Amino acid sequence: MLNVAVAGASGYAGGEVLRWFERHPDARVGAVTAGGNAGSRLGAVHPHLFSLADRVLEETTVDTLRGHDAVVLALPHGHSAAVAEGLGDDVVVIDCGADFRLRDGSAWSTFYDTPYAGSWAYGLPELPLRGGVSGRDTLVGEKRIAVPGCYPTASTLALAPGFAAGVLEGDDVVIVAASGTSGAGKALKPNLLGAEVMGSMSPYGVGGVHRHTPEIEQNLAAAAGSPVTVSFTPTLAPMPRGILATCTARVRPGTTADTVREAWRTAYADEPFVHLLEPGSWPTTAHVIGSNHVEVQVVLDGRAGRVVAVAAVDNLAKGTAGAAVQCLNLAVGLPESTGLLGSGVAP
Amino acid sequence: MLNVAVAGASGYAGGEVLRWFERHPDARVGAVTAGGNAGSRLGAVHPHLFSLADRVLEETTVDTLRGHDAVVLALPHGHSAAVAEGLGDDVVVIDCGADFRLRDGSAWSTFYDTPYAGSWAYGLPELPLRGGVSGRDTLVGEKRIAVPGCYPTASTLALAPGFAAGVLEGDDVVIVAASGTSGAGKALKPNLLGAEVMGSMSPYGVGGVHRHTPEIEQNLAAAAGSPVTVSFTPTLAPMPRGILATCTARVRPGTTADTVREAWRTAYADEPFVHLLEPGSWPTTAHVIGSNHVEVQVVLDGRAGRVVAVAAVDNLAKGTAGAAVQCLNLAVGLPESTGLLGSGVAP
Amino acid sequence: MLNVAVAGASGYAGGEVLRWFERHPDARVGAVTAGGNAGSRLGAVHPHLFSLADRVLEETTVDTLRGHDAVVLALPHGHSAAVAEGLGDDVVVIDCGADFRLRDGSAWSTFYDTPYAGSWAYGLPELPLRGGVSGRDTLVGEKRIAVPGCYPTASTLALAPGFAAGVLEGDDVVIVAASGTSGAGKALKPNLLGAEVMGSMSPYGVGGVHRHTPEIEQNLAAAAGSPVTVSFTPTLAPMPRGILATCTARVRPGTTADTVREAWRTAYADEPFVHLLEPGSWPTTAHVIGSNHVEVQVVLDGRAGRVVAVAAVDNLAKGTAGAAVQCLNLAVGLPESTGLLGSGVAP
Amino acid sequence: MLNVAVAGASGYAGGEVLRWFERHPDARVGAVTAGGNAGSRLGAVHPHLFSLADRVLEETTVDTLRGHDAVVLALPHGHSAAVAEGLGDDVVVIDCGADFRLRDGSAWSTFYDTPYAGSWAYGLPELPLRGGVSGRDTLVGEKRIAVPGCYPTASTLALAPGFAAGVLEGDDVVIVAASGTSGAGKALKPNLLGAEVMGSMSPYGVGGVHRHTPEIEQNLAAAAGSPVTVSFTPTLAPMPRGILATCTARVRPGTTADTVREAWRTAYADEPFVHLLEPGSWPTTAHVIGSNHVEVQVVLDGRAGRVVAVAAVDNLAKGTAGAAVQCLNLAVGLPESTGLLGSGVAP
Repeated sequence: MLNVAVAGASGYAGGEVLRWFERHPDARVGAVTAGGNAGSRLGAVHPHLFSLADRVLEETTVDTLRGHDAVVLALPHGHSAAVAEGLGDDVVVIDCGADFRLRDGSAWSTFYDTPYAGSWAYGLPELPLRGGVSGRDTLVGEKRIAVPGCYPTASTLALAPGFAAGVLEGDDVVIVAASGTSGAGKALKPNLLGAEVMGSMSPYGVGGVHRHTPEIEQNLAAAAGSPVTVSFTPTLAPMPRGILATCTARVRPGTTADTVREAWRTAYADEPFVHLLEPGSWPTTAHVIGSNHVEVQVVLDGRAGRVVAVAAVDNLAKGTAGAAVQCLNLAVGLPESTGLLGSGVAP
Repeated sequence: MLNVAVAGASGYAGGEVLRWFERHPDARVGAVTAGGNAGSRLGAVHPHLFSLADRVLEETTVDTLRGHDAVVLALPHGHSAAVAEGLGDDVVVIDCGADFRLRDGSAWSTFYDTPYAGSWAYGLPELPLRGGVSGRDTLVGEKRIAVPGCYPTASTLALAPGFAAGVLEGDDVVIVAASGTSGAGKALKPNLLGAEVMGSMSPYGVGGVHRHTPEIEQNLAAAAGSPVTVSFTPTLAPMPRGILATCTARVRPGTTADTVREAWRTAYADEPFVHLLEPGSWPTTAHVIGSNHVEVQVVLDGRAGRVVAVAAVDNLAKGTAGAAVQCLNLAVGLPESTGLLGSGVAP
Repeated sequence: MLNVAVAGASGYAGGEVLRWFERHPDARVGAVTAGGNAGSRLGAVHPHLFSLADRVLEETTVDTLRGHDAVVLALPHGHSAAVAEGLGDDVVVIDCGADFRLRDGSAWSTFYDTPYAGSWAYGLPELPLRGGVSGRDTLVGEKRIAVPGCYPTASTLALAPGFAAGVLEGDDVVIVAASGTSGAGKALKPNLLGAEVMGSMSPYGVGGVHRHTPEIEQNLAAAAGSPVTVSFTPTLAPMPRGILATCTARVRPGTTADTVREAWRTAYADEPFVHLLEPGSWPTTAHVIGSNHVEVQVVLDGRAGRVVAVAAVDNLAKGTAGAAVQCLNLAVGLPESTGLLGSGVAP
Repeated sequence: MLNVAVAGASGYAGGEVLRWFERHPDARVGAVTAGGNAGSRLGAVHPHLFSLADRVLEETTVDTLRGHDAVVLALPHGHSAAVAEGLGDDVVVIDCGADFRLRDGSAWSTFYDTPYAGSWAYGLPELPLRGGVSGRDTLVGEKRIAVPGCYPTASTLALAPGFAAGVLEGDDVVIVAASGTSGAGKALKPNLLGAEVMGSMSPYGVGGVHRHTPEIEQNLAAAAGSPVTVSFTPTLAPMPRGILATCTARVRPGTTADTVREAWRTAYADEPFVHLLEPGSWPTTAHVIGSNHVEVQVVLDGRAGRVVAVAAVDNLAKGTAGAAVQCLNLAVGLPESTGLLGSGVAP
């Protein structure tokens, strides 16, 4: 039985990490820590987590986190490095934050406002790479893993098979993604009030400035074996959870609909969580809410010379906390899908 | 390992029954049957149930349902009796429909349009009865159990402790409940279209005509040991799931706030799924969506001489499918909460 | 052309007041004032008010508000008296706040935390009173009018005809109302975040403590000619606007369905904004969003000995700003419905 | 006073046409016609249109529509030609359907399943064309006008200034648009049920097959003076109304952020309904719901070599019925914005 601490447990991501560990058969929740909410009962912060209601949030320090088999960090960016350094090298540390995702320090500096902390193994097991290997090969037995961002997870899983198969051009990828508002966290901002959000859509971080842009490019480049440039526009949708990423890329000359389908089919044939839908069905966020599953579909638009690939994920589950559990399973040698196979809640 | 068939598996209730059995450690899903959807893949009908996607819906007949340890019926009312009769007496039959809930044939005839089929054990384990016994005492080892309606579950759990404790008058109960639209099922009605439902609330079945009225009265009378009359108004709320039942009843003379709180505290002190909230906190449907949990709160309004008791449930989970699993556990001698303790999905 | 100033123009109520005056043929918007938002462009605070985008919010002071034919106050409670006193007796002042609604100073002191300011004419023209007179008779030519609260407007219009006609008992009224979240204003509270609100319902101010309770009682007592006691429970619904008030009261012995219908029919037969629906149709908030209209329906529940009367209003329109315009029209001698007859926006 | 008939008045588009004419100072609603709903009271079909509640829907025939100054058609595609032919050449006919939008018969045949009917003047007054002229120059005094589709309106207004100014490449436009579900009409389809729609997003018509694709290309080509190819993906969003179109196109070499902004600023400087937002603000559908206004914003993504231009419209208002009124105003010589300047309803 793994003893797992969760740091930053009072936010939406932290709460979701707890929800997944609550049902994990081989792990139990150790210390739960927070910043401003330290001292609160978990039941007051996450009323839906009934089995953990009487646990009390401790302060996020190296001391409270020490002595666990694994620590999951769900902290604001810029805070993970100090905590991770204080934990022993034998402790598995899974970071849900952005700090260790980018391998290019200059990309970090362009998009983030804290010092570059370096990079860890990137926790996207299903990332198809050229030559038939996948992201999971880099994760088995790892002690330090960076969980992908929610948009990069959806966008990468939508498009990477085409890059790994060599059928897509890398110089003109366009991604427009819609996210539920839990993706914006619990910060009290006027534009996140229910009265503003319900019944409304709007973009944000437009024009190549959203921080997930270089991470998406890094992933697609890893699949392609060459650089990829992305125009990425996130939008806020009137739903609590879920990401729908609509992704397009130009195809290489001679690419057929069959080639395209075969590339995606091959990439995900054996994946437990990524489901290429039957032709004619399209990803729908409601199908994956609360689950670690991903719906993917792709089609070739011959007129425009582009594939349109769409993925639906739960931003908090496969987009964050489910992925964290999946990475931990790989890190400690458990079956990858342990505790993760349940269905989502629909309708 | 119990082999469980699910009849009426293509509706919202049936799909939710499958979702709960998918995670049940001591049961596996046998035949899944439907009416008009027979022949379809489950993946086409309930895309969120990935582990069962390749199962094919068979026709709902006694033959397809025979040979299981248990059968869960999620059929339109009027259809359960014929199916149940054809199954052996040793098979556990759990009916999510209304057919066997009412002990009073004349109440059935007043509210329903099919012949009265009789009554089975009533599947509300937490129903507090006078003298400290509870509904679960009637369920252990039973072979035929009627799962309560969703509104009756919420309304009964909100008010019954006061009747069991003898602090409430039975002649003037008023209940107004809001339900998510999955409660109306998958029928294609114009008023259930998303564009009509979103951002709007409206009542229906007003004026003492909703079919759940006599069931609520039956339950509260069982707790009180004397007749109870209820004014019940259901409303449709712009959410997929969830019921919030706001229930009031006049208190007997001399009843104090302390008496009230103590009655409710005692009733649910040992219940795994019914949670009396801390004073000042109020039930919120989001806290129980996807779970078998129930939030309850009560307060005495001294000015009006009434208690206001509120309960939140997921209409498809504790309101239907979770209750079905809970009843089955009791029927076959498994721990009552087997497979049911997980948290809901929030936010 | 009336020159109208709006104080507290940066909140939801203030913005809605501006929206209604924008379309008023005999009024123009003069000074627009605010507290913390003074200095901002209106376009930054209410982006949907395109025609007023370049107006700048001034500070709310007597000086900025002086010199107008009318001033509409949309201030937090406790602030209206000082402003109104500074304005001349010839200026029409319409207060959207609570300060001058209650005629009973002790009721004010029980429910509010600021000193009692007295009472003004109560701005509910459609309030049916015993003997066939109505609220509007008290408003023509008035210089100081208190706009009713949103819940009292819906609740009163639902039930008052029965009290005016003498068919209802006044000692046991129960009202449960659902409101869109704009009713809670723009305050940045965690429970008002979109991710918390969407898909969820919860009650608040339960147990006879909500401030609108004495106002509802005052109105129903005015219709009845004798005291009325109300159990009032408000709930927060996942929609931006709208109130659905479900109201029940016991009927006097001998009251028939026909008596009931006739009482309601008579009360609203000539009202331009209050619509008693055809039997079988029920109020739906979507039908009145953005409009000054009210839908009302009533039915007698013979089993429970109660009428159930339901009203739907837009909390910001007929519930606040539309009513303010209606009151101003009466105060200055314009046709009551000037600028108010437009339909709402549906779906 | 124009006497205007509305054909197809029972659908969402038809109801919205009525809502706009209800407030038009120089028009009154004549015959209102429908297919299957003929014989119904308007109040039963569109309960929010209180002033027209007692009007009765007649059958859609040339006879019922004859004798009006103008006829607005809101019919399923394929039905407009027969009706329009039967009306005199002196009657203004405004078609909200697709039948007369495309000037290229082969594009029609590729995307639609009825015979090509020809093309009428295209009703997008704000369409910026090369050389500083605009779409309105083609509409003044016209007797037959085709109202643009909702997606084409949003997409065209977002991108056309760049094409008219010659700063965009036409060979690789990518548009992803989110629409409220009223855009799918009142058809009773399972995926449009509230329980399915709320909290969920999904694409449809993916891969270059949506019927609005050639219309968008036609508009952008008209602005560019040369062919434009578009990859267009529509998505269904959990809101009743509104379209958010996120549009990108590669810029010509040497294009600067200033050039881009100046092109858009110039195009819309004098437009009453199209508002280029301040830098840093982004279109939000809630700001335009219920109004004829359009929010537009654009930014240059230098990394990706693309502009991202976003537009928000109300699909039923500026996207359909508001545009119809605007076209009629131009056709008959009224000021273009007559009856159209009101603000939307927010929050």
